[in-house]
Amino acid sequence: MLPQDALQCGKEQNLIRVISEYAAKRAQEIGAENVFNFSIGNPNVPAPEIVTETLIDILNTVPPAQLHSYTPAPGLGWVREAVAEDLNRRYGTSYTASDLYLTAGASAALAIVMKAVLLPGDEVILFAPYYPEYAVYGECFGGRIVKVNCRGADFQIDLEALEAAITEKTKIVVVNSPSNPAGTVFSQETITALSDLLRRKQDEVGHPIYILADEPYRELVFDDDMTLPFLPNDYDNTIYTYSYSKCLSMPGERIGYILVPPKAAEAENLYASVCGAGRILGYVNINTLFQYMLPKVLDKTSDLSIYKTNRDLLYSELTKYGYEMAKPEGAFYLFLKSPEPDDLAFCERAKQFEVMLVPGTVFGYPGYARLSYCVDTDTIRRALPAMEALMKTYTE
Amino acid sequence: MLPQDALQCGKEQNLIRVISEYAAKRAQEIGAENVFNFSIGNPNVPAPEIVTETLIDILNTVPPAQLHSYTPAPGLGWVREAVAEDLNRRYGTSYTASDLYLTAGASAALAIVMKAVLLPGDEVILFAPYYPEYAVYGECFGGRIVKVNCRGADFQIDLEALEAAITEKTKIVVVNSPSNPAGTVFSQETITALSDLLRRKQDEVGHPIYILADEPYRELVFDDDMTLPFLPNDYDNTIYTYSYSKCLSMPGERIGYILVPPKAAEAENLYASVCGAGRILGYVNINTLFQYMLPKVLDKTSDLSIYKTNRDLLYSELTKYGYEMAKPEGAFYLFLKSPEPDDLAFCERAKQFEVMLVPGTVFGYPGYARLSYCVDTDTIRRALPAMEALMKTYTE
Repeated sequence: MLPQDALQCGKEQNLIRVISEYAAKRAQEIGAENVFNFSIGNPNVPAPEIVTETLIDILNTVPPAQLHSYTPAPGLGWVREAVAEDLNRRYGTSYTASDLYLTAGASAALAIVMKAVLLPGDEVILFAPYYPEYAVYGECFGGRIVKVNCRGADFQIDLEALEAAITEKTKIVVVNSPSNPAGTVFSQETITALSDLLRRKQDEVGHPIYILADEPYRELVFDDDMTLPFLPNDYDNTIYTYSYSKCLSMPGERIGYILVPPKAAEAENLYASVCGAGRILGYVNINTLFQYMLPKVLDKTSDLSIYKTNRDLLYSELTKYGYEMAKPEGAFYLFLKSPEPDDLAFCERAKQFEVMLVPGTVFGYPGYARLSYCVDTDTIRRALPAMEALMKTYTE
Repeated sequence: MLPQDALQCGKEQNLIRVISEYAAKRAQEIGAENVFNFSIGNPNVPAPEIVTETLIDILNTVPPAQLHSYTPAPGLGWVREAVAEDLNRRYGTSYTASDLYLTAGASAALAIVMKAVLLPGDEVILFAPYYPEYAVYGECFGGRIVKVNCRGADFQIDLEALEAAITEKTKIVVVNSPSNPAGTVFSQETITALSDLLRRKQDEVGHPIYILADEPYRELVFDDDMTLPFLPNDYDNTIYTYSYSKCLSMPGERIGYILVPPKAAEAENLYASVCGAGRILGYVNINTLFQYMLPKVLDKTSDLSIYKTNRDLLYSELTKYGYEMAKPEGAFYLFLKSPEPDDLAFCERAKQFEVMLVPGTVFGYPGYARLSYCVDTDTIRRALPAMEALMKTYTE
């Protein structure tokens, strides 16, 4: 009597959330200091002080009837203009407010784009391992998910496999860099080659293939010499989504955007379709208090240096214990090779050591497990003996 | 190449918003004091002071890494518990946190319920005139909209017409009281009769027919002697949605909930399906700052007395000028009979007097126009000569 997809999605729940809630329960039972919750991408460093200061200042100065009123659905014009200017300053572009649609975080942005673009039967290519909600959104709106495995050694895009997977039905290719769950950063060379390939395939199939860029981790690249390509500058048919959750450490507040570059195919219709999709999915406008805040914090981040410290510590120590992994170049995730083929069994065994990991199966990539290291470095230090003991159950 | 429903919805836009944006443009051109914007339901009275105080207090006392972090998707347990207790105190019920799912306002709640309940071909009954987004959400998720006109004189439910419209495909009946756009309050007698009818029809068709109650105007009933029925107490299969937008004057901040009463048919699955639908539509959790605020303001409202003042003034004066309307008993809307059959032409003519009204056609009820009087009383006083002059173009 009820729709199977909604029922199923609600019953299964998001497994990442389930593990995270188990960790919270264990913390109550045995003390938070004895639980090593590496399950969820919830930043541990606080939002920068300017966030609190700005919010209080707005509350003290903007009259409430104005501050809390409806805004245009894509967001206040002057707020979107500020976001456009910030992009233009960073990437040498010339976007305006009317290219932007503010969203309640990246999830809303992704769901809205899928609804705005997909016709039943259209194919969405995901590079595995991938964030599982891509498939949830894509399938809900009639899309068929086509999985293309990354190259196992470094989790870079396997261009040959991608080329083989593209059909006349291909409509969207999701690109997430730095990536969740592997922390991979796609280099300029990779993106150039990807763009060339997609342009060629577009001509072959005779219709636009959109890149859906999902880049909430873009401020989190560890190598200072590495410049993250800005995809709309390489590939015209890029629909670009961003969230301020991770770099400002405020994932609960839901602030992000969709950029529809004017160069994209059918850009005007595409933007209208994004507006229509937002309306259909029940989005009215993102919270006005946070719209007012946004222009003041566009070039700010939390202190992100801890993530590099954590990455270095984990990579060097876990490697010593015998774990195998690609060295992450960004985000705050490690993707460990499971010491046994069954990653679910491995993650269950890790729980016995109070270590919470997420099985690679969740990300469409069995045989691995994700470790989120957006925790304080001391937690990692205390977890290392548990990680070592866990590996010893396989090697001794 | 793009889905027609999203494209259409984006191009048409919400006509109410379009008129409201026209009003803003006119205000810039000729001065806000010369524009009588009765188009949008954006409360003019400020949020109660406790809203600002509470938000600042939370920002000053809760550590940012905690305050702005992810919460469980349905909302923080202690916040939902507080909402449940508030309902229990008001309505003698015994709900708990696990019956509630916090939403980004009423629109999100309605879209989520439609997605959670509807199978392709299921019918959704709307009492016309109705808030147009009901049809947008219902149709997007495969529902077929069945329109049942209210009784013209008082806009009460026409039970005979409803009975005739119910089929084996009927899955949802939307009940909105006090209503937008007519300001109608459904009495206890009406709701009792409606419940009896639906129970009988449920038995006939052999499956649950859910009432989807949409009651954001619940605190806005003008007659102190009138008690608004609480639908889940009358009819078990009620899915109840609420928003704090209107009574707290903060429509831009998106705070509401879905209540799935444990007595409802398939309640456990229904709640799971609501969670799944929220996930599918890209909702993660409602903004955490406002979750923290909610328990402190549950029994507070803005100063709502102005709306009764406005209603009384408008009803008495407009009637004198020759306008026909049912006297609204709640919300902040008047539904005027158009002096000419074509309500779109009437609203265009009103614009010449700088009066912004929304055609009844938008609400599935041609020949009428909605006047939103959530404006200050002085604006109404200044608008009266324009309303009189407008009517005179028809009568002189």
